[in-house]
Amino acid sequence: MMQEKKVITKKSGDFSKWYIDVIKQADLADYGPVKGTMVFKPYGYALWEGIKRELDAKIRAMGVDNAYFPLFIPESYLEKEKDHVEGFSPELAVVTIGGGKKLEEPVIVRPTSETVIYAMFAKWIQSWRDLPLKMNQWCNVVRWEKRTLPFIRTTEFLWQEGHTAHATHEEALVQVGLAIEAYAEVYREHLAMAGVAGYKSESEKFAGAVKSVSYESLMPDGKALQSCTSHDLGQNFSRVFDITFQNKEGKEDYVWQTSWGFSTRSIGGLIMVHGDDNGLVLPPKVSPVQVVIVPIQSDRPEVKEFSDKAFSALKEKFRVHLDDRAQYTPGWKYNEWELKGVPLRLEIGPREAEKDEVVMVRRDTFTKESVPVAGLAERIDEMLLELQRAAFERSRTFMDKNTREAGTYEEFKKIMAGPRGFIRAFWCEDAECEAKIKQETKATTRCLPLDAKEEKGKCVHCGSDATHRWLFAQAY
Amino acid sequence: MMQEKKVITKKSGDFSKWYIDVIKQADLADYGPVKGTMVFKPYGYALWEGIKRELDAKIRAMGVDNAYFPLFIPESYLEKEKDHVEGFSPELAVVTIGGGKKLEEPVIVRPTSETVIYAMFAKWIQSWRDLPLKMNQWCNVVRWEKRTLPFIRTTEFLWQEGHTAHATHEEALVQVGLAIEAYAEVYREHLAMAGVAGYKSESEKFAGAVKSVSYESLMPDGKALQSCTSHDLGQNFSRVFDITFQNKEGKEDYVWQTSWGFSTRSIGGLIMVHGDDNGLVLPPKVSPVQVVIVPIQSDRPEVKEFSDKAFSALKEKFRVHLDDRAQYTPGWKYNEWELKGVPLRLEIGPREAEKDEVVMVRRDTFTKESVPVAGLAERIDEMLLELQRAAFERSRTFMDKNTREAGTYEEFKKIMAGPRGFIRAFWCEDAECEAKIKQETKATTRCLPLDAKEEKGKCVHCGSDATHRWLFAQAY
Repeated sequence: MMQEKKVITKKSGDFSKWYIDVIKQADLADYGPVKGTMVFKPYGYALWEGIKRELDAKIRAMGVDNAYFPLFIPESYLEKEKDHVEGFSPELAVVTIGGGKKLEEPVIVRPTSETVIYAMFAKWIQSWRDLPLKMNQWCNVVRWEKRTLPFIRTTEFLWQEGHTAHATHEEALVQVGLAIEAYAEVYREHLAMAGVAGYKSESEKFAGAVKSVSYESLMPDGKALQSCTSHDLGQNFSRVFDITFQNKEGKEDYVWQTSWGFSTRSIGGLIMVHGDDNGLVLPPKVSPVQVVIVPIQSDRPEVKEFSDKAFSALKEKFRVHLDDRAQYTPGWKYNEWELKGVPLRLEIGPREAEKDEVVMVRRDTFTKESVPVAGLAERIDEMLLELQRAAFERSRTFMDKNTREAGTYEEFKKIMAGPRGFIRAFWCEDAECEAKIKQETKATTRCLPLDAKEEKGKCVHCGSDATHRWLFAQAY
Repeated sequence: MMQEKKVITKKSGDFSKWYIDVIKQADLADYGPVKGTMVFKPYGYALWEGIKRELDAKIRAMGVDNAYFPLFIPESYLEKEKDHVEGFSPELAVVTIGGGKKLEEPVIVRPTSETVIYAMFAKWIQSWRDLPLKMNQWCNVVRWEKRTLPFIRTTEFLWQEGHTAHATHEEALVQVGLAIEAYAEVYREHLAMAGVAGYKSESEKFAGAVKSVSYESLMPDGKALQSCTSHDLGQNFSRVFDITFQNKEGKEDYVWQTSWGFSTRSIGGLIMVHGDDNGLVLPPKVSPVQVVIVPIQSDRPEVKEFSDKAFSALKEKFRVHLDDRAQYTPGWKYNEWELKGVPLRLEIGPREAEKDEVVMVRRDTFTKESVPVAGLAERIDEMLLELQRAAFERSRTFMDKNTREAGTYEEFKKIMAGPRGFIRAFWCEDAECEAKIKQETKATTRCLPLDAKEEKGKCVHCGSDATHRWLFAQAY
């Protein structure tokens, strides 16, 4: 018997080390050989597949079609939109050799696909009849990052990027909203992660956008994670890529565009927000395994038979796994599946087999209960709902408790020195002022919440007139 | 009303031009901006998604887990396996600049992932308990090709690549067989494409493999398409990447490995094999739309109502599309959906609405029949099965008719000059002899069919002793 338990750092002790330990010990991922790249191991990739399934359905429901565009973009394409190239050029990977020869024009490995997709849109769109054109792709993108962290910031990551073209700005704005709403639903209802949706500041918006909207979640260390974004591109790209259409009145016009993306960074947030000292804690809706059955004294025929029966009875309804490996003790398995964050564990020993019941242990609170087999599926159903609800509740409570108003810059600095978290404060919307706040406190504007109301106030930093309270935090 | 019909070259006239026309007019794909790359438009990508769904289930059923490995491979990794680097170095894309700086070690954009995956396997495998290790990834790969053709040979393509490590060679060989069998099933049962599975010759096998097995299909122009491959890698990679395990006896040993891949090339084969002068002809199982409903005089309320009702009644059971666009005539729509290869068309006009029936037209033979609404779903079910069967039957008949025995080199050359197709002939298995045949006739060994029996014969080219009849053809 191999019984060496896997050990991780306590989350409450050293959060950064805990994060890396959990990823390794729960078998989510490993480092790739090229600096900043990562390997998604099956358990980690299954999380992405689950998120993808969910989000893909929502994207289709918006009338968006999946397609696939090339990985390689001519360097000249990227240079067309001034802000776009400025934003992305510091982090590009460039192919200069192809088929043994130096390329006449180097090609960029896509950091995002606006330019290559919009060059195609220009070919495909002629008339109002071709609009709206709504496409999405699931793919890998590359940004050469200096400081990397698995899932959160890696040289290569996986994502979906949606791209649409519309006849009017109004219609494009609706799409920007629909996308962020779909994302927020996935975060709230599936990943059980509370967050705030809002407009990015001018300096924090997407390079090339008129306006960007993001969903910002608060991590346990008081730093914020920009969890996804949706952009109003206006006519910025259609003008440089010459994407015109003949409108119903027969006049040529540039299309109005949006783009929006959701990446494997979400998995980093999921780990951070829900995990505890014992490892991952996965909300039932995204957990690759929802229920694990661990037989005790599995060499006894009545235990084996009872465990097999329970597995068969549950497998159609839940993602259930029977861990009947002989080389590990039940205790080792408990530890293993706790590490992997499986919501419910069923323990089945001779006593349970005799009484026709199972011991059910929930991952988040470790509360135990005996459940008669007769009502098992119904009880599991209830418990999974309860675990999902409780996970979101904990996340929301944490965010609420760690969102503070700062009326003065002193208060602002004190919060940033101390517990950190989200800060709501008036800001004058001046970029220089924003830069100084960042320099002095590490806090950046995260967003102007969509539900923020116009008020009269003074900028928390410079005292100038301000009309809205923005959300600040140190960002990942 | 826009009524300009889309026109394509006849398949029976200029096959190559027909192929390009169909891809364009059926809206499957477009050319990407970087030479040799392609864009999968939604209709073409939907074909890939369908194939993926089918194959993914078969891969999981083999106990293989999905994972994801990095796009970038250090140049030094690729150089470890001598044959592997020789095979792939002429077609590599190399990143030499990252984040604005020249890289110390250039990185390769994966042409296939043996090297980067096996470097990880070496870390993960220690004991017989870690075996077998079976992983698969769905991803993009890049090979810098000189002559490209959409779907068939492109600089970037999409595929799945499975990679396994086993304790014994016997177990690895079983996996090689399981993979090719899963592929052949997808080809035969879903893509309705007949083909021959068999061993590749030494010169045609995968760079780094001990043995390769492929599935070869015959295209209408008499050329063969290598449609997928499964490789016995022996210990070639485990020795250079040092993937060792402690066996049950406590001794260190190198693992035995396999790899196997199936790509978007399959879509090229699908188009070529089934299409006709009117465009695509899609087997029902892979068709993104199985039934299209075209209302005639759709402004008449009884037609609209009847069409909507038919759509609602069928949509749970089939992939059905109601084409109620007002700006196109029924005739234009017939042409459009024929081009797109949709298996069944339902025409619904005032006459049909009155008689409570529909006119059903099958795409392959254009036969029409009136079907009462009462039995419509059942009849569609039958017809889709029949269309699927008929498609495979045509493919098999074509292959059988175009597979010829060549007893002499004269016969061999005559076939290659004339109708081409598959040739079965004795071959001495000498690489020089093989090279000469290719030089003189363009035919290469495609494979030694898995069911080939040992016989006594003389090589069709050099007359030396030969033990098996090989399959020859000009290859794509």
